Amino acid sequence: MIPRHLPPMEARHEYLLHLADNALVLGHRNSEWCGHGPELEQDIALTNLSLDLLGQARLLYQHAANGIGEGATEDTLAFLRDASDYRNLILLELPRGDWGLTILRQYLFSEFSLLQYQALQGSTDTQLAAIAAKAIPEVTYHRRWARDWVVRLGDGTEESHTRMESALATLQPHLGELFSPADFERTVTERGIGIDPSTLRSEWTLRVRQTLDEADLAVDLSSLATPSNHTGMDGKLGRHTEDLVRLLAEMQTLQRTYPGNEW
Amino acid sequence: MIPRHLPPMEARHEYLLHLADNALVLGHRNSEWCGHGPELEQDIALTNLSLDLLGQARLLYQHAANGIGEGATEDTLAFLRDASDYRNLILLELPRGDWGLTILRQYLFSEFSLLQYQALQGSTDTQLAAIAAKAIPEVTYHRRWARDWVVRLGDGTEESHTRMESALATLQPHLGELFSPADFERTVTERGIGIDPSTLRSEWTLRVRQTLDEADLAVDLSSLATPSNHTGMDGKLGRHTEDLVRLLAEMQTLQRTYPGNEW
Repeated sequence: MIPRHLPPMEARHEYLLHLADNALVLGHRNSEWCGHGPELEQDIALTNLSLDLLGQARLLYQHAANGIGEGATEDTLAFLRDASDYRNLILLELPRGDWGLTILRQYLFSEFSLLQYQALQGSTDTQLAAIAAKAIPEVTYHRRWARDWVVRLGDGTEESHTRMESALATLQPHLGELFSPADFERTVTERGIGIDPSTLRSEWTLRVRQTLDEADLAVDLSSLATPSNHTGMDGKLGRHTEDLVRLLAEMQTLQRTYPGNEW
Repeated sequence: MIPRHLPPMEARHEYLLHLADNALVLGHRNSEWCGHGPELEQDIALTNLSLDLLGQARLLYQHAANGIGEGATEDTLAFLRDASDYRNLILLELPRGDWGLTILRQYLFSEFSLLQYQALQGSTDTQLAAIAAKAIPEVTYHRRWARDWVVRLGDGTEESHTRMESALATLQPHLGELFSPADFERTVTERGIGIDPSTLRSEWTLRVRQTLDEADLAVDLSSLATPSNHTGMDGKLGRHTEDLVRLLAEMQTLQRTYPGNEW
C-alpha cells in the first residue's frame, strides 16, 4: 500500500514536488480547454502547451520518486496524494475561468517559471539542472504565445479589455505567493539546489509591467499580498482551496478506484 | 450570418466533411481523457493522438472551406454546424466508455483510416492526396500504439479481458457503417477523388482478425450490420445519436455564444 499521507518531507523532495505540482495542476487546468477553445488552432496550441507542462511534471515526479524509493513512481506521486500533500501555488489551481483568465494566468506564471528554470540550470542537483534546461525552450514559447494573446485581448475590443481587467483583478491577490519563499525553498537555496523566489521578483515585475502597459492594462504590482495576509490559503504549505480538491477528485478517480490498474 | 442548415451539399464537399468530422469527433472524444488517463505517460500519448486527429480535421476543413467560400472557415465548419450536418461515423461519436473501449475504438478505426488514407494518396484532388500523405505516418503510429494496448489488455488480467470483450460487443454493431458507401462516396469514387470503403473491407478484416486473435478476443466480423439495419442511425447521412448532440453542445458553446469572438 502507498501511504496516503506521507511523513514530513525532506526539503529537496518537497521542492521537487512543488515544481512538479505547479506544472501538473496548471497543465490539467489548461487541458480542460481541450476541445473547448475559441478556435481550433488555439485549442490545439493550448493543448500542446498542456502537454509540455505534463511532460515537465513527469520528469520532476520521476526525479522525486527516485529519491524516496518505497514503490513511489511518477504515477503514485501524481495521482495518489491528497490535496494537503500538494505543494502547488494557489494561483494555478484557481478554476480556468474564461479564455482571458486562462491566458493571463499562463502568461504571469510563464514569466515566473522562465526565470525560475533559468536559475535552476545552475542547481547542484544536476538532474534538476538538466530538467530545467530542457524546460526552458518550452516555457520560452509558452511565454511568447501567452504574451501575444494578453496584448491582443487587453488592447482589443471593449469586451475583451473589460474581461482582461476582470481576470487581472481575480489573479492579482495570488501573485504575492510566487515570491514568498516557503521554508523548503529557503533550505534548498542554502544548499545550492533551488532558488529563493523573492530574488526573481524585480525582474518579473519589470517584464510583466511592460507587457501590461502594451496591453493597456493597469495593476498595482508594487504591494503584493503574502499568502497568509488575505486568504489563509498557502499552496506551498498544502493549504489549498476547494477548487484543488475538486480538480484532484476528477483527475484521480481512475487511479484511486483501480490503483496500479490500467483502468 | 452563417446558415445553420447548409443547402444540399456537393458530393466532394460532403466527402471532405465526412473525413474531417470523423477526425474531429474522435479527436474530441479522446481528448476527454486529458488529465484522466490511467497513467500520466498514456494520458499524454492519447492527448498527442487527439492533437494529430484535430490537426487532420483542420486541414480537411480548410480544404473544404476553400471550395465553398461565402465566409466559411475551418472554425465555422467545425463549430457552427448542427448535428444533422455532421457526416461522421456513429462509431466515433459513441461515449468514450472506459479505457478499453477508447483504445479498441481507436484501434479499429486506425486500421480503417490507414487503408483509407493510403488509397487517397492517389486522389485526383491533389490537395486531398497531400493531406492523406501527411496523415499516414500519424495514423501508422496510432494504429501501432492502439494495437499494442488491445493485445496487452485483451491478453491481460481476467478483469481487463472481460472489459475488452464488453467493449467489443458495444462497438461491433457499428462496424458495418465503415464499409457501407454513402451516395457521396460512390460519386467521389467515380470521379477519382475518393475511395469506396467497401473495397477496404477484406484487408481490414484480415488485419483486425489477426490482432484480435493475438488479444484472445473473439468476434464475428463476417456479417456486419449495415447502418439502417439495426439502429436507424446513419452518421454519413446525418442521422446521429443524442451523444453527438451533447458532444457538439459542449464543444460549440463558446463559438455559438460569441460567434467570431475570441471568447
